[in-house]
Amino acid sequence: MTAAALLPLLTAAGVGRDEAGALADAVLEADAAGHRVRGTTSPNPPVGAVVLDAHGTVAGVGATNPPGGAHAEVVALAEAGERARGGTAVVTLEPCNHTGRTGPCSQALLEAGISRVVYVFADPGDAEGGGAGYLRARGVEVVGPLLQDGDLPVGMPVFSVEPWLVSRRLGRPHVTLKYAATMDGFAAATDGSSQWITGKPARARVHLDRSRRDAVVVGTGTVAADDPRLTARRPDGSLYDHQPLRVVVGLTGLPGQAAIHPAVHVPTRDLEVVLDELAARGVVDVLVEGGPHLAAAFIAAGLVHAVEAYTAPALLGAGLPAVVAGPGTTTTMAGIQRFTLRSAETIGGDVLTVTTRACNPR
Amino acid sequence: MTAAALLPLLTAAGVGRDEAGALADAVLEADAAGHRVRGTTSPNPPVGAVVLDAHGTVAGVGATNPPGGAHAEVVALAEAGERARGGTAVVTLEPCNHTGRTGPCSQALLEAGISRVVYVFADPGDAEGGGAGYLRARGVEVVGPLLQDGDLPVGMPVFSVEPWLVSRRLGRPHVTLKYAATMDGFAAATDGSSQWITGKPARARVHLDRSRRDAVVVGTGTVAADDPRLTARRPDGSLYDHQPLRVVVGLTGLPGQAAIHPAVHVPTRDLEVVLDELAARGVVDVLVEGGPHLAAAFIAAGLVHAVEAYTAPALLGAGLPAVVAGPGTTTTMAGIQRFTLRSAETIGGDVLTVTTRACNPR
Ligand SMILES: NC(=O)c1ccc[n+]([C@@H]2O[C@H](COP(=O)([O-])OP(=O)(O)OC[C@H]3O[C@@H](n4cnc5c(N)ncnc54)[C@H](OP(=O)(O)O)[C@@H]3O)[C@@H](O)[C@H]2O)c1
Ligand SMILES: NC(=O)c1ccc[n+]([C@@H]2O[C@H](COP(=O)([O-])OP(=O)(O)OC[C@H]3O[C@@H](n4cnc5c(N)ncnc54)[C@H](OP(=O)(O)O)[C@@H]3O)[C@@H](O)[C@H]2O)c1
Repeated sequence: MTAAALLPLLTAAGVGRDEAGALADAVLEADAAGHRVRGTTSPNPPVGAVVLDAHGTVAGVGATNPPGGAHAEVVALAEAGERARGGTAVVTLEPCNHTGRTGPCSQALLEAGISRVVYVFADPGDAEGGGAGYLRARGVEVVGPLLQDGDLPVGMPVFSVEPWLVSRRLGRPHVTLKYAATMDGFAAATDGSSQWITGKPARARVHLDRSRRDAVVVGTGTVAADDPRLTARRPDGSLYDHQPLRVVVGLTGLPGQAAIHPAVHVPTRDLEVVLDELAARGVVDVLVEGGPHLAAAFIAAGLVHAVEAYTAPALLGAGLPAVVAGPGTTTTMAGIQRFTLRSAETIGGDVLTVTTRACNPR
Repeated sequence: MTAAALLPLLTAAGVGRDEAGALADAVLEADAAGHRVRGTTSPNPPVGAVVLDAHGTVAGVGATNPPGGAHAEVVALAEAGERARGGTAVVTLEPCNHTGRTGPCSQALLEAGISRVVYVFADPGDAEGGGAGYLRARGVEVVGPLLQDGDLPVGMPVFSVEPWLVSRRLGRPHVTLKYAATMDGFAAATDGSSQWITGKPARARVHLDRSRRDAVVVGTGTVAADDPRLTARRPDGSLYDHQPLRVVVGLTGLPGQAAIHPAVHVPTRDLEVVLDELAARGVVDVLVEGGPHLAAAFIAAGLVHAVEAYTAPALLGAGLPAVVAGPGTTTTMAGIQRFTLRSAETIGGDVLTVTTRACNPR
């Protein structure tokens, strides 16, 4: 993520040009902290926070602890200590204003002597009004929200709190569809072989991605064809600390010896039932890793909110498409589902394109 | 194109770090000049040249004139005049050393008093030995070749002379396959409609691209479905100065009223015959614009040397794939055709991915 996309938002919110660069960097650092705890905070959002002292120097960095633990602001304030006085708190989500399992963050910021709060997204869940109003009423300068959930511009990198925000808005888990394909859109050769379409750096990125999800989902077809483990592994083969729930969807029974165990098998083809089942388990952020039939079904049901397409610079000319049409898919351009391009990044010799759905009440 | 990719090549070739930045910029400026004349120089290569005076300031810029006219170096030298003395000539292709329709460039550079020549690619066609040796023997410092045709690194932007170099090496026109597709790889909805998958900026880029080709090719199916003009038009609808030859391939007769006229119809499905026919017309650089059946046939025949994939951030879930398998396509991963990622660029809200084939004697 680069700071450039944030500069116009900060200056539009009244921040001086001389300060905007440092604040943009702080937003990025806060978001990076949020990304590092993704997968461990649900049902709470993976928020990141940075406290700058009165001179603008980073004094503390924090992220949401697992449920019941401290919020990001509290962690960053604790690290900053006395240096927080007269400083700025930069948070990726509006500070909370209610006493849940932890005290309200708005109060903690006030008590620490923070004189300015910059936040990215409004907190949609605060029945008593967000922390921004509370802080403003008590003389703290408040800058934000910088962005609106569901209305994000082209080129704006994805923030760690976005899946949580979308999930809150839609009342179901947020679904990211991920696939790897050739330039001509094939996820496997005609004989079913697909190892390896993308290079090692891209595959390493997929594992890191898994380590930051609540759950990863595949269809019974992928289990039968590839017998994948679906664990999140570092390049040296060791497991990441956080492992997502592994989920298999489809009517076919799951072999007891499948490498994916321990896995949750949801024996249905009704994807709303699948998401309900996952929501009941506290899942907010889901990565659907295919295969092509399950991917098409999630698309046709309008349940895909983000797409991560890994594209290898190769041509097959034929094979298994990354998405295989099923019932319910559109047959006209009128039914096309439009997304917003968030980033196109080179990873090793492959391209990772990330897109998210624009605001959509469905 | 950014200068960053060129810096290591220049320093590896012995250029000092203090000078490498300015020379990299000059290489980019020379290549940009070459791109501006693409489509008008065949059978000669669209070379670009920049002359820097003894202080390193740009004194002249030139590109290959149409056949029979001056070469790039001569144009740049003419603009520089006396300022060329003691200066550096930066050329995208090794200066020629033979007296063809114009005098040898190597001699012109010597006579102008150039003291250093930097060039990107070696000239494969110079029977008497390239201009580099001639110049070196006469005391001119020569830096190059910086790159080797067919062995280009990930992230290195495409130079204007590359199609000509590949065409020379393989003895047939260079083929770029271009298509526009959704993220899930569909070039049209199931009902055949495809307007518009990509946005205006991407479509404008396609027109600019056409204006720099010798020929654009489509199958009879695309003519029947879309009745395209295939002209190269500016966003205001006016025609670019250079229009490529328009070519339709396939056994079906071409309607006399088709919008593509005047067009060349090559009534065959043998793509080697098509390329022979185009070569006989002096074509070096071909853009194949589909449709999906013709694209698959070009891939299966191993005739695609570059791919320009425009990807729209949208999902269809079903439709006409960008490539539709035909006879001769591989059924295993062993038959995959690997390319090198040259660039992934955001154009408007779409992504343009450009890849080229690694050196391949076929
Ligand atoms: N390149 C990649 O990114 C990638 C990723 C994964 C897999 N693959 C490749 O994909 C191939 C397997 O493809 P696949 O399509 O058979 O795998 P799949 O999509 O994982 O499994 C298809 C199965 O999912 C179940 N399912 C559950 N809900 C469904 C719904 N609403 N609609 C349709 N199906 C539903 C059905 O199983 P039941 O019949 O049991 O109900 C269906 O047969 C393998 O060759 C594998 O290598 C590639
Ligand atoms: N999104 C995009 O980039 C894009 C670009 C172009 C077209 N399209 C869409 O593509 C659709 C048309 O698809 P299409 O596949 O029918 O068009 P096509 O590929 O342009 O035409 C197919 C025809 O090409 C001829 N052909 C020549 N050599 C061939 C070979 N070696 N192998 C196979 N065919 C060969 C055959 O015609 P004969 O039978 O006459 O021999 C064949 O029927 C339209 O819906 C159009 O909108 C999309």
